[in-house]
Amino acid sequence: MSQQLIDHIKKTVDLKPDELERILNAFRKVRYNKKESLQRPGELCRYNYFVVKGLLRMFFIDRKGVERTVQFALENWWMTDCLAYGSAKGSDFYIQAVETTEVMRLDFHLQEKLLNEVPSLEKYFRVLYQKAYGAAQMRTRLFYEWSREELFHHFNSNYPDFVKRVPQYLLASFLGFTPEYLSEIRKKAVS
Amino acid sequence: MSQQLIDHIKKTVDLKPDELERILNAFRKVRYNKKESLQRPGELCRYNYFVVKGLLRMFFIDRKGVERTVQFALENWWMTDCLAYGSAKGSDFYIQAVETTEVMRLDFHLQEKLLNEVPSLEKYFRVLYQKAYGAAQMRTRLFYEWSREELFHHFNSNYPDFVKRVPQYLLASFLGFTPEYLSEIRKKAVS
Repeated sequence: MSQQLIDHIKKTVDLKPDELERILNAFRKVRYNKKESLQRPGELCRYNYFVVKGLLRMFFIDRKGVERTVQFALENWWMTDCLAYGSAKGSDFYIQAVETTEVMRLDFHLQEKLLNEVPSLEKYFRVLYQKAYGAAQMRTRLFYEWSREELFHHFNSNYPDFVKRVPQYLLASFLGFTPEYLSEIRKKAVS
Repeated sequence: MSQQLIDHIKKTVDLKPDELERILNAFRKVRYNKKESLQRPGELCRYNYFVVKGLLRMFFIDRKGVERTVQFALENWWMTDCLAYGSAKGSDFYIQAVETTEVMRLDFHLQEKLLNEVPSLEKYFRVLYQKAYGAAQMRTRLFYEWSREELFHHFNSNYPDFVKRVPQYLLASFLGFTPEYLSEIRKKAVS
């Protein structure tokens, strides 16, 4: 599973053999069970997670007690609460394994040391966060402009594997409607 | 105005004297008039803008012909369409000067060269985009959880200078309601 992370980094930057070793020493492989929590609100956010196999989600519980999913991470995606990561401020989000999930976990304190030792990783993370931020700009646009039903069809057309894999109630909580309404839309789309 | 950019970079990374010069050579100072467009949908997105003085906004026009503002950039903020920047794909957004605005503008082609020459800028941009992405995660939460009226009060309490400075119809288009409704909320808040 280490190789998968290295391959992902190498898509953006070159790595020397001694750098490979430093990277692998900084990460820890961890396996989480289905529904296990990796992060809870109020806790310090120490880790950034690279998903090797499985699926993570980030969510919060709103004032009505309803879970609202703000983000998913499938294989080769990273997930952390970026404002809280490494800060003295507690996280505002839950991070939870949707399926049994294997990650490569990077501790913030080791990250700082690692980035000094392997400066090319700065470029890797810069490109990563730049793309993620660009996707967030586009998401803002889509959520402003499109109806919830249109958003579902957009995800269904563009990310069919993702839509098939995510449990229906979580997809509904991400798109902002009830599981019953999602079920209706799905039926309409098939018929 | 160059010094302001250098000061901003130096808050995150150290720079050597020859690096300062390389940075300043890569940027171009540009002044835009109030309401002037810096970027239009469909155009290639060549530039990343650092605001020295003034205010930029990013928006799109929805299917009903209504302008929807997705982001503002005041002094010391950067703005570009991050998915389109440097790609062969046209932008999905307008970028416009809300006031007369002075920027330091970075051409994508010069950026690539500059980042090779001054690698510490990778860290500067990595930290910048990481924070911006974190803010986008939090924004997703706020827009999910809070009513439009609560969002206005949140912005009013946390960014009073920003709320005073942004024209009312643009703040409304950012928060997702009509200028008339914003005006009502403001009156209620004062009385």
